[in-house]
Amino acid sequence: MKQQGTLDIETSNTLELMDITTQINRAVGASGCESGICFLYNPHTTSALTINEGTDPAVQEDIIAALQKIVPAGVRYKHLEGNSPAHVMTSIVGSSEMVIFENGTLKLGTWQRIFFCEFDGPRKRKIHWRILSA
Amino acid sequence: MKQQGTLDIETSNTLELMDITTQINRAVGASGCESGICFLYNPHTTSALTINEGTDPAVQEDIIAALQKIVPAGVRYKHLEGNSPAHVMTSIVGSSEMVIFENGTLKLGTWQRIFFCEFDGPRKRKIHWRILSA
Amino acid sequence: MKQQGTLDIETSNTLELMDITTQINRAVGASGCESGICFLYNPHTTSALTINEGTDPAVQEDIIAALQKIVPAGVRYKHLEGNSPAHVMTSIVGSSEMVIFENGTLKLGTWQRIFFCEFDGPRKRKIHWRILSA
Repeated sequence: MKQQGTLDIETSNTLELMDITTQINRAVGASGCESGICFLYNPHTTSALTINEGTDPAVQEDIIAALQKIVPAGVRYKHLEGNSPAHVMTSIVGSSEMVIFENGTLKLGTWQRIFFCEFDGPRKRKIHWRILSA
Repeated sequence: MKQQGTLDIETSNTLELMDITTQINRAVGASGCESGICFLYNPHTTSALTINEGTDPAVQEDIIAALQKIVPAGVRYKHLEGNSPAHVMTSIVGSSEMVIFENGTLKLGTWQRIFFCEFDGPRKRKIHWRILSA
Repeated sequence: MKQQGTLDIETSNTLELMDITTQINRAVGASGCESGICFLYNPHTTSALTINEGTDPAVQEDIIAALQKIVPAGVRYKHLEGNSPAHVMTSIVGSSEMVIFENGTLKLGTWQRIFFCEFDGPRKRKIHWRILSA
């Protein structure tokens, strides 16, 4: 009956959207809470969280391609680690998400899935989650 | 004395920022809660929520025009429904907002209004809200 | 033992990322709450909040330079105050942040710092914070 925890993630690509909805829904169901808000927190500075369409994988590819055009890699940046575009994408997409849940299940829209956004992988990553009952 | 609910919205344009502050403030006032946080959740994948200036409607037009330049429509996308820019805008602007409230009223800044952002309309949409008393 | 408050900020530049982590951590520690979520709210329409790398100041400069390219100043906008790019940046970066805390300390990642993002300074600004114990 845990109301908080950490999800371990391992990404496979430099940029990647990984669907973590099933794991988060399982955590909500196991929490014993009927209703409330589930908060998700990404503790990294070159990755993010977003909610978007999960049915057609082409949407995820389009989001990644669009972000690479918005924050191009071939430009001169001051930070010398070479991952400045990943830092910028993190601030654009955001480090946290929150989803309402009812009857022990996330109240997502029909097409919505929760994605971990890797911008500087592949890496081992973590997502902290915490449930507030209401 | 409801502490949660859903706001029904009907948009009129393909892209549009619709001010929903009055409806959310009414919901907060009717909840019977004096103080806490109001969470707003957009269950769609081609719309979003933002907080920005509401006094001069030109700001809303500038935000839409800027997003259309940042995620242009005339580019080749893999998702074949033709609304990939709307999906990308959703991940850039974000699917949720939260506002502190006190004395039964949203604690917004002087110029702030809450906007539902339609990126693929006109459509019928919903916003879920939930109040945590504190 | 306050569980809510307001942080006063004074920025020095037109665009600037200001690290407010120390002040927020102090507020969390002084709240007397062991564990929960700290919500941060920016009540302005030309500034925002983000969480990103704080060790190398070049990251902050790269984020500002990237945002200035994404929302350029030299373009024609309808809003006549001349700060439309700042309004757009606000909707892209976002007006709120939330961070989990445990043992009276923010549970940030190794490299994470909380930044107030000034997009139309220098100005006097405020950040409201509120703690939900959990």
